[in-house]
Amino acid sequence: MAVNLPPLPELHPVAGIRLGTTRAGIRKPDRRDLVVIECAPGTHAAAVFTKNRFCAAPVTVAREHLGQSAPRALVINTGFANAGTGTGGLDDARATCAAAAGVLGCGPQAVLPFSTGVIGERLPVERLTAGLPAAVAALSETGWSEAAHGIMTTDTLPKGASRRVLLGGKTVTITGIAKGAGMICPNMATMLAFVATDAAIDDRLLHELLAGAADASFNRISIDGDTSTNDACVLLATGRSGVVIDAVHPEVQSVFSQTLRAVLAELAQAIVRDGEGATKFITIDVEQGASEAECLEVAQTIAHSPLVKTAFFASDPNWGRILAAIGRARIPRLDVERVSVYLNDVCIARHGGRAPGYTEAQGLEVMKQAEIRVRVVLGAGSASARLWTCDLSHDYVRINAEYRT
Amino acid sequence: MAVNLPPLPELHPVAGIRLGTTRAGIRKPDRRDLVVIECAPGTHAAAVFTKNRFCAAPVTVAREHLGQSAPRALVINTGFANAGTGTGGLDDARATCAAAAGVLGCGPQAVLPFSTGVIGERLPVERLTAGLPAAVAALSETGWSEAAHGIMTTDTLPKGASRRVLLGGKTVTITGIAKGAGMICPNMATMLAFVATDAAIDDRLLHELLAGAADASFNRISIDGDTSTNDACVLLATGRSGVVIDAVHPEVQSVFSQTLRAVLAELAQAIVRDGEGATKFITIDVEQGASEAECLEVAQTIAHSPLVKTAFFASDPNWGRILAAIGRARIPRLDVERVSVYLNDVCIARHGGRAPGYTEAQGLEVMKQAEIRVRVVLGAGSASARLWTCDLSHDYVRINAEYRT
Repeated sequence: MAVNLPPLPELHPVAGIRLGTTRAGIRKPDRRDLVVIECAPGTHAAAVFTKNRFCAAPVTVAREHLGQSAPRALVINTGFANAGTGTGGLDDARATCAAAAGVLGCGPQAVLPFSTGVIGERLPVERLTAGLPAAVAALSETGWSEAAHGIMTTDTLPKGASRRVLLGGKTVTITGIAKGAGMICPNMATMLAFVATDAAIDDRLLHELLAGAADASFNRISIDGDTSTNDACVLLATGRSGVVIDAVHPEVQSVFSQTLRAVLAELAQAIVRDGEGATKFITIDVEQGASEAECLEVAQTIAHSPLVKTAFFASDPNWGRILAAIGRARIPRLDVERVSVYLNDVCIARHGGRAPGYTEAQGLEVMKQAEIRVRVVLGAGSASARLWTCDLSHDYVRINAEYRT
Repeated sequence: MAVNLPPLPELHPVAGIRLGTTRAGIRKPDRRDLVVIECAPGTHAAAVFTKNRFCAAPVTVAREHLGQSAPRALVINTGFANAGTGTGGLDDARATCAAAAGVLGCGPQAVLPFSTGVIGERLPVERLTAGLPAAVAALSETGWSEAAHGIMTTDTLPKGASRRVLLGGKTVTITGIAKGAGMICPNMATMLAFVATDAAIDDRLLHELLAGAADASFNRISIDGDTSTNDACVLLATGRSGVVIDAVHPEVQSVFSQTLRAVLAELAQAIVRDGEGATKFITIDVEQGASEAECLEVAQTIAHSPLVKTAFFASDPNWGRILAAIGRARIPRLDVERVSVYLNDVCIARHGGRAPGYTEAQGLEVMKQAEIRVRVVLGAGSASARLWTCDLSHDYVRINAEYRT
């Protein structure tokens, strides 16, 4: 069902990063469900996490460990999210770290745990820890593709992105993987994304670069408007390329930052393309707003409207539903007389009503395509925002009605 | 598909109110689609309208006319919403009033227009005005049931409520009808509701009583979170019972107000029971909040979550999705340790996790019922709010994907 999501591209190894994936039988038998990402000594890490107050136990523990120690390993399981599990869930996340630390020979604070899957049920820690030796034995610099498969849940395809860029005569690599197809409306990061580079970057700048790139990518996608309890995006910098990214070389930093943003945007868009039941990939651009926040609010209201989403599923140019969504957006002022709406390059609404000369045939021509751009011009200022979303189909209901069966 | 929505009850006539319904062929042939509600001279009227900024032309004109004149007639058409139609739409709404005024022999400002149906297409005024004489010829004090049918669109059943109450030795009647099944998240009133009483009430008090009752009923329902462009709720008071409702008789006013609220709550709940594709009727109670607004925000976030709604459709006690929705609600503070969640009387979550002793079998037992109460205890104060909603089913997607075909 994924919308124009190409097969996994070549994922370039990142010096200092090894990945191992195994089938631990955590929730279902014979399924890749446990991934270990090992990073070389000296690796710096930054992470952004969900803002959902019911954040999962591994989010709490990962945040805690990040503040205490440089990471040596990430442990990721699917099957159970270990969210809504109270203090027992925190114990389980800590036990996971301790077990991985034992196998890898590092301190438990050097391990960051991540979980995704069903909310509210305890993590079967014994099955997870029993699988750890196999995952560690599989560690390899070329393990990215296996790991991309190993973190999938309702995803129909694995998601990865990789770039190489020449900086100061040396090659720097940025490679990342992500997962997510439902409960997607990240409010800091997305379900799970792990990105690594062999550039050398200090903690402060690493966090700054990650936060900026996540804000322009994962924070700009929505499948169903539901923010997950487990969202996390981690950026690792091993330094093994010998290229230093810092404020002393603003041009190098700029190229690196743009490349990082390209990798994260590709991962974020891959999540939307593989949105549960998605048949359309929709880009929403809101322009000429009084502020970026206002533009984003309008874009989100459109993206979350079940009526707009079912119209896209039906390839129905029912632009009245788009106007109705704009009209209920929580923004302080809206002059409907100044609003225009476009589907791709076709102006469908102007001055609060149907655009002169617009024909239903023009709208249908756009709507039947798999990739559609909705452009809303507010006429209130110079700010803008872009969001990516998908439609609401029969399969979305089927997938989520059957999810736990 | 409607959830426990009983057949239309007996709708008691209201002295001074006559209703006429006809088949004007406005959008589809041979369908009741035009209703005229005539009120006797001296009738007072109050109305609440949608807060959607892209409000429909008839909303603009009805609001304008209400400020200029006591109403003599309401004209309601289905098929086209006359929203997103710009100045041409305003002309159409005014032409409708002028035509009705001609047939009824009153001023055009004494006519209030209402439309519901497809957004963004012009109203075929000629077909509407051609149908007016038949609707006026059909005017009758017993026309309530026909009118309840005449305002239906995707509704599967007509909706009406009626109460008689003895006030100061005289009988006062309150009778109302409503329509609506999709694009339901009223933010002032609902799609269309017309309520009349034979009590005598001045304009100011009438508005106050209506606003309070609408806030406790229509403003507390959500089917899909989409606020319509055409929401309107009108309350007419003919005075023919001889009973005066005023501040001089607070006890009489209190009984009248409670009866009015009962009528509006019954209509509002009927809309949810007949929600597009609905298979469950869900009451969401949020208690012990810091403010009513905070409780309402939490209730709405749960009610609008596609994941919560599909879980209800599947009768899946996936309470983690309810926690995740609470966790992303836009409220300033949330102490997850203090939050408890109940399905009917079963405590499913406590202290941010699964409640001790809760079993999946208990949750399943509740979820398989057609009427379910979700009770969220925030432990932050003494405010509370109640909301009614329904589930998200395959039929919701089918209905809204096929709506214009």
